[in-house]
Amino acid sequence: MTKIGFIGLGIMGGPMAANLVKAGFDVTGYNRSRAKVDRLVEAGGRDADSVADAVRDADVVVTMLPDSPDVEAVVLGEDGVLAHAKPGTLLVDCSTIRPDVSRAIAERMRALDAPVSGGEQGAIEGSLSIMVGGGAEDFAAARPVLDAVGSTVVHVGEAGAGQTVKAANQLIVAGTIELVAESLVFLEAHGVDTEAAIKVLSGGLAGNRVLDRKAAAMVRREFTPGFRVELHHKDLGIVQAAAREAGVAIPLGAAVAQLMAALNAQGHGGLDHGALLKLVAQLSGREEV
Amino acid sequence: MTKIGFIGLGIMGGPMAANLVKAGFDVTGYNRSRAKVDRLVEAGGRDADSVADAVRDADVVVTMLPDSPDVEAVVLGEDGVLAHAKPGTLLVDCSTIRPDVSRAIAERMRALDAPVSGGEQGAIEGSLSIMVGGGAEDFAAARPVLDAVGSTVVHVGEAGAGQTVKAANQLIVAGTIELVAESLVFLEAHGVDTEAAIKVLSGGLAGNRVLDRKAAAMVRREFTPGFRVELHHKDLGIVQAAAREAGVAIPLGAAVAQLMAALNAQGHGGLDHGALLKLVAQLSGREEV
Amino acid sequence: MTKIGFIGLGIMGGPMAANLVKAGFDVTGYNRSRAKVDRLVEAGGRDADSVADAVRDADVVVTMLPDSPDVEAVVLGEDGVLAHAKPGTLLVDCSTIRPDVSRAIAERMRALDAPVSGGEQGAIEGSLSIMVGGGAEDFAAARPVLDAVGSTVVHVGEAGAGQTVKAANQLIVAGTIELVAESLVFLEAHGVDTEAAIKVLSGGLAGNRVLDRKAAAMVRREFTPGFRVELHHKDLGIVQAAAREAGVAIPLGAAVAQLMAALNAQGHGGLDHGALLKLVAQLSGREEV
Amino acid sequence: MTKIGFIGLGIMGGPMAANLVKAGFDVTGYNRSRAKVDRLVEAGGRDADSVADAVRDADVVVTMLPDSPDVEAVVLGEDGVLAHAKPGTLLVDCSTIRPDVSRAIAERMRALDAPVSGGEQGAIEGSLSIMVGGGAEDFAAARPVLDAVGSTVVHVGEAGAGQTVKAANQLIVAGTIELVAESLVFLEAHGVDTEAAIKVLSGGLAGNRVLDRKAAAMVRREFTPGFRVELHHKDLGIVQAAAREAGVAIPLGAAVAQLMAALNAQGHGGLDHGALLKLVAQLSGREEV
Repeated sequence: MTKIGFIGLGIMGGPMAANLVKAGFDVTGYNRSRAKVDRLVEAGGRDADSVADAVRDADVVVTMLPDSPDVEAVVLGEDGVLAHAKPGTLLVDCSTIRPDVSRAIAERMRALDAPVSGGEQGAIEGSLSIMVGGGAEDFAAARPVLDAVGSTVVHVGEAGAGQTVKAANQLIVAGTIELVAESLVFLEAHGVDTEAAIKVLSGGLAGNRVLDRKAAAMVRREFTPGFRVELHHKDLGIVQAAAREAGVAIPLGAAVAQLMAALNAQGHGGLDHGALLKLVAQLSGREEV
Repeated sequence: MTKIGFIGLGIMGGPMAANLVKAGFDVTGYNRSRAKVDRLVEAGGRDADSVADAVRDADVVVTMLPDSPDVEAVVLGEDGVLAHAKPGTLLVDCSTIRPDVSRAIAERMRALDAPVSGGEQGAIEGSLSIMVGGGAEDFAAARPVLDAVGSTVVHVGEAGAGQTVKAANQLIVAGTIELVAESLVFLEAHGVDTEAAIKVLSGGLAGNRVLDRKAAAMVRREFTPGFRVELHHKDLGIVQAAAREAGVAIPLGAAVAQLMAALNAQGHGGLDHGALLKLVAQLSGREEV
Repeated sequence: MTKIGFIGLGIMGGPMAANLVKAGFDVTGYNRSRAKVDRLVEAGGRDADSVADAVRDADVVVTMLPDSPDVEAVVLGEDGVLAHAKPGTLLVDCSTIRPDVSRAIAERMRALDAPVSGGEQGAIEGSLSIMVGGGAEDFAAARPVLDAVGSTVVHVGEAGAGQTVKAANQLIVAGTIELVAESLVFLEAHGVDTEAAIKVLSGGLAGNRVLDRKAAAMVRREFTPGFRVELHHKDLGIVQAAAREAGVAIPLGAAVAQLMAALNAQGHGGLDHGALLKLVAQLSGREEV
Repeated sequence: MTKIGFIGLGIMGGPMAANLVKAGFDVTGYNRSRAKVDRLVEAGGRDADSVADAVRDADVVVTMLPDSPDVEAVVLGEDGVLAHAKPGTLLVDCSTIRPDVSRAIAERMRALDAPVSGGEQGAIEGSLSIMVGGGAEDFAAARPVLDAVGSTVVHVGEAGAGQTVKAANQLIVAGTIELVAESLVFLEAHGVDTEAAIKVLSGGLAGNRVLDRKAAAMVRREFTPGFRVELHHKDLGIVQAAAREAGVAIPLGAAVAQLMAALNAQGHGGLDHGALLKLVAQLSGREEV
């Protein structure tokens, strides 16, 4: 039975680790807050007291951490994965981080970058979309692990490519939310029935998942996350840095990054990213922030 | 049998009129270029030599024209619909024009604004999305006509509301194409497999119709319209004017309007609006325009 | 002695007319509100009860009105300048309006478009900058009149060219205010001494009149007009329409137009345009609007 | 006589070091390319073969280097200033770098961040504007050195504040060039006499140094640097990072950063930053890039 060391048992990592247990893997988990480790044990996993402890006997290490510095510390730090895993252990990093950090890690150990989309619900249901960068053989080796947590698992290129596609994903999602927000406030201001409008907009080339899944809540001003503004703000920092590195112009990406940064600066980092609608309404003099 | 006068038998209007004939309506068509009228006659319709001729006996007049001044001339002009139709004739204007023009017309005669989305293919298949503004009774009266040309027919509000929703539609479509264009050029620049990326992006919250229907052609640099840049440029002028009138901020809408205007100014007005990718590639130093 | 009919004795027009009296012209003024006409009489001018009355005997008619429709009504309307002035009377329109309206007027009568910059203070001091479009002979004929109200009087091209340059002026001014606003909030957020910073910024290539004249008041949050947001918002509408007409991309112009529109929509139309700083501070979570 | 070690004798550093010699300082210079050291020797300075050699006996060390990593290497590296200068030596770093790097250096040694504006001409003439961050005593101590190379020398705050003000400077300069570029292309497209327009625009609130010093060359499409696009592109990266760090919205700054990045990606990094006009003309279909 494949032994998995799992680091990072938060909102996303917790249910992912549980799904790996359910799929028959032998999962040992570590998290800074002990309560989350206990939940994994309840689900049938084993507990570890440190990263070293979690990865020592693992065939595959899965990491699900907030940001680039966290991954660097956990993987490359003194007490980290590289220092304590067996030679040849495969790292599957599901965090959303900078592509250059993923590439730097892949130069030090066998590693795939495998960021996910689909949110908490996708993590619970095991229906995440996973965009994987790294070698073809490593992808093949990790496939059973990835299939246990995701339903759309695609190998998109070499090391870092998974992060690059995730960056593109976050660019499109932020931009689409903003376009829908501008449209909804525009329709409200013109006194149009937004429910009917959402229906007909969804039927044509304007159709998108944000209209399908989020527009109704945005109209109702319900912004319980879902995916938090502060995380999307972080991700748009990655998008801009990666675009700058590649010399690619992203005028709409840069514009929506400013709006997400504003929402975050206004203290709304904890709201769902659909709260871009609040900002459009504020800029249109239609409500306070 | 309901008699329909149909003005404007172009790429969209031609197949729409043919579908009305097929649905059993008695359709008399007029177009400035005679060849298009002949095509309607072949399809089983009648020909008219003037607007007056086409609308004189009509119960319903359908117009499908390029821009606001065309509709004003055809409907309100000396030789136009209002002057020559019977009292009580219902106008169904399927053109995409300024909401205030639609409202002005509705003050002069029974009229619905009923702009469509779905393109040439939707017109041929009778599967257009139709966003309808006007009175509920007129909407009910026009329903059989609208159902013959569209599959998603939604009453969204009073006179002008159809145009307002169409404006929102054009804002979202232009913005989404640009977001996809920025993402694709970004992925190309990073050497990522775009086909695989499109697949995995479509699976999550980033999923949209532009990715489904247009992204592959954009990657191949195929920009045969479809919907032309010059028309989308015109429509974004309507969007901006309507947002300004309502005091609504549309920062992304305004940014993409600049890009569409640039593409048009560069002489690419005749290409499909997916050609926004050309502009992103040009701005990124990756190809000449 | 040259007889001048002066229409529009507001904040700008009032002192301009007074300066014409001072320079020795025979000035007859008209304004909708009688109090302003009385002030001209006190300054040594004559009063008129109507536009017709003001222009009947004039050699030169000067107009200073808020917007394009006002100028169209006063000049081309039934009771207007064209209908009541002597043949050959020269119109000097100092209003800031759409270039196409200026051109249309110039096709109907001898006319210069001569919009001004320099604000209330410049009007009082007779030190306005005046950008003049129209024929060279008419410019020569109007020169004494223009020199009585302005210190920089430049003939920039044919009819409408004055308005075009004024549009460029308003684009640069709005953009510069916004750049200074972004910089000041940025410096405040980093705890930098803004007074010292304004001094050193003014010394180099970043130096501009907004830093010289407005930055200190912006830092103190003093937004007494000066030039009102609602007027600058109107002017940026002219800029965008004229850019669209000429097929010119103005990405920064379009972006600042959105911000000015937002400020106006939030109810700050009556503040000085330096209040763009309020909006930047709001977007940065540093103050309420 | 104060002994100065000077590291970085390029386009800016070379003439600055020569001015320090002229002012009576004992200057020992180091540069990677030997030819530039020879030029300092011709001007009356001394040569050094290494950073260590240049700083060993110095009372003040001046650095003028391209980017943050260069300064980190030269100051904090194994063979660097900190390792080889006497205790208490004062570092005056005139490079334009990230504020956080300046702050990090100031935690390790006596240091001022003292970036300059005014370009090659200002360096030659000793008329630079210098924005200085650091302690008041250190500023007082460095004053004679700074006065020898600059004419506007302002203490703007604690360590890093000089860089922050320089970032604001670069934001305003880039934005102003772009505003002038948009205006000039707009005026060209409307057939207006740009020379006359520049004159009248300079007279009012739109007046700025870019109009005074660069607009005429921009109209003539002369883009010999001056200040290179690739450096301004680097600086706008610093601006965006510093704004993000402080949670400040810079919508215009972000938009012009995209345009500068595009110009750089198109291979125009070696042109003067006034070449933003080329990009506006390209986007307006008025010229090839």
